[in-house]
Amino acid sequence: MGTITIKLLAERLNLSTATISKALCDSHEISEVTKRKVLDLARELNYVPNAYAGSLRRHKSKTIAVLIPEVADSFFSLALNGIEEVALAKGYHTLIYMTHEKVEREKAILKELVGGRVDGAIISVTAETASFEHIHDFNRRLPVVFFDRVCPEIDTAQITTNDFECGYQATQHLIEAGCRKIVMLSISNSLSIISARSEGFKKAIADNNLSEADCHIIACTEDAASNYTLVKEIMSGPNRPDGIIATVEKLTTEIYLACQDLGITIPTDVKVICFSNQSSAVILNPSLTTITQPAFDMGKAAATALLKALKNNELPLADESEVIPSTLVVRNSTTGGIKN
Amino acid sequence: MGTITIKLLAERLNLSTATISKALCDSHEISEVTKRKVLDLARELNYVPNAYAGSLRRHKSKTIAVLIPEVADSFFSLALNGIEEVALAKGYHTLIYMTHEKVEREKAILKELVGGRVDGAIISVTAETASFEHIHDFNRRLPVVFFDRVCPEIDTAQITTNDFECGYQATQHLIEAGCRKIVMLSISNSLSIISARSEGFKKAIADNNLSEADCHIIACTEDAASNYTLVKEIMSGPNRPDGIIATVEKLTTEIYLACQDLGITIPTDVKVICFSNQSSAVILNPSLTTITQPAFDMGKAAATALLKALKNNELPLADESEVIPSTLVVRNSTTGGIKN
Repeated sequence: MGTITIKLLAERLNLSTATISKALCDSHEISEVTKRKVLDLARELNYVPNAYAGSLRRHKSKTIAVLIPEVADSFFSLALNGIEEVALAKGYHTLIYMTHEKVEREKAILKELVGGRVDGAIISVTAETASFEHIHDFNRRLPVVFFDRVCPEIDTAQITTNDFECGYQATQHLIEAGCRKIVMLSISNSLSIISARSEGFKKAIADNNLSEADCHIIACTEDAASNYTLVKEIMSGPNRPDGIIATVEKLTTEIYLACQDLGITIPTDVKVICFSNQSSAVILNPSLTTITQPAFDMGKAAATALLKALKNNELPLADESEVIPSTLVVRNSTTGGIKN
Repeated sequence: MGTITIKLLAERLNLSTATISKALCDSHEISEVTKRKVLDLARELNYVPNAYAGSLRRHKSKTIAVLIPEVADSFFSLALNGIEEVALAKGYHTLIYMTHEKVEREKAILKELVGGRVDGAIISVTAETASFEHIHDFNRRLPVVFFDRVCPEIDTAQITTNDFECGYQATQHLIEAGCRKIVMLSISNSLSIISARSEGFKKAIADNNLSEADCHIIACTEDAASNYTLVKEIMSGPNRPDGIIATVEKLTTEIYLACQDLGITIPTDVKVICFSNQSSAVILNPSLTTITQPAFDMGKAAATALLKALKNNELPLADESEVIPSTLVVRNSTTGGIKN
């Protein structure tokens, strides 16, 4: 179904568009009966009026939306701060929406937002987002910028970090530290970042002639308890890994706890590296080697690109794409050799 | 200045309210010249049209606002998840606003929100919020519920935890573990939660006849680097504390780092307890004793109270106030005795 317009309401009710418009504006010229008819149909068809009514519609809402999976993650909370810094400086409001990794929520939020509540959106897609029609629909009306978890299919600015290189670098670092049986703990396969990190991992394994049977990628879930059980199973098995790469920050606690409960010592029995921006990495037992992403700068770049587009409708947003490199920070969780 | 209404615009321009309304609705009955005049004045006076135009104004936006200091904090991110769970179940949208501890932002956000964009707000005030006129103003039009950092001056639901008891309990726990020189690291004095925790601390110190000279409260800042320097100074002084209570989660990293860099061992030289919901508490070096707050449940209770009020305009919201107790979780950072 296309957009519900005043014209469509007029056709359906056999009234003029002026009457519909006046009825929606609660004009005294329109009878209560007609107003009721118009409002009932408007509601039935889910007619979305612009957030700023009438002629004010021509003005901007000076508001941007940010869609992210969750805020309880240091990458996203830092990125949000970067987005807000730029938005505030330009007099824009920022609305934050959590998708909780559900594509249905992403769809519902974007559908609601086309009504004029915001001038554009910055999106990091959910782990479930495998097709992009809903984002295309939104993007036909309002500008979109992606960051971190991007949609290369959509012709716009994509702010990313060098995920492939980081996947490679993390793996290479473990190999140089003596690891030969490395697992990468991952989440959704459809996510751009995860697939890039996985490819980097595979390339490093191949370049170093390590066995694919010993070095593989294992999918985790959204649930901490089941991830704990999974890590425990992996670390109790006959062919126990001597290196773990976690592509998601929140796996850190479960990896450390599972090892602790099994009496497996990090870094002598197994070395651990995580993609993480947690400030507590440095005070963990042992301190955690991380791939630290430029979260704040990525947020800033995404907001800068979007606000540029809002200022200049003709801007080819794809040209604003940027790759901001991450940093390997070596700490105690990957030092020393491996005890055989 | 009062609210800018269509009536006021009409008076100023010496036009009828019907003309103003039509001009704002871009009616073809109104000349372009008049429309321009109306729009210019509307903009100049900062006229805020309802988010949902015209008659649709009578309907609710089905949206609630949440104002919190920041999202990069496990208490607030968990509370947000609690709020969203309730809101989603009732078909409400949640808009998240970060105040970054600035009362000016809190004021600006609330001023913007009275325009009809939301049906009500859930607020945890900033560390700077010492007077409440701006919240009163908002609350005259729309319902407000407070959680954690509350405003008892405003007659509405206040969702809190037992901060006084927790301040007392944390102090008592350190005393029982052998500490005699205890500092509480705190932030804003105007915050309800901080003053309650401080009172609990003072009561425990008095009940145990400890010296007020040895046991006191020290104010920290918003800046991690200066907090690190402050903790280092405190721990390098002649009368070094043997117990630290951090009332804010984000102080954890600085306390651990400062002790580590000074060669001070937790828990033998100093015992540490934090008000914290960080899941990483258990994998720190050493694992951290915490006062764990019912963040998720507090968020749920706040949203439940607000949505109840939205359903029933007559509801005395103050009756929905609730105190949900926190839990002391003892871990290694407070075990064993104190080395003298």
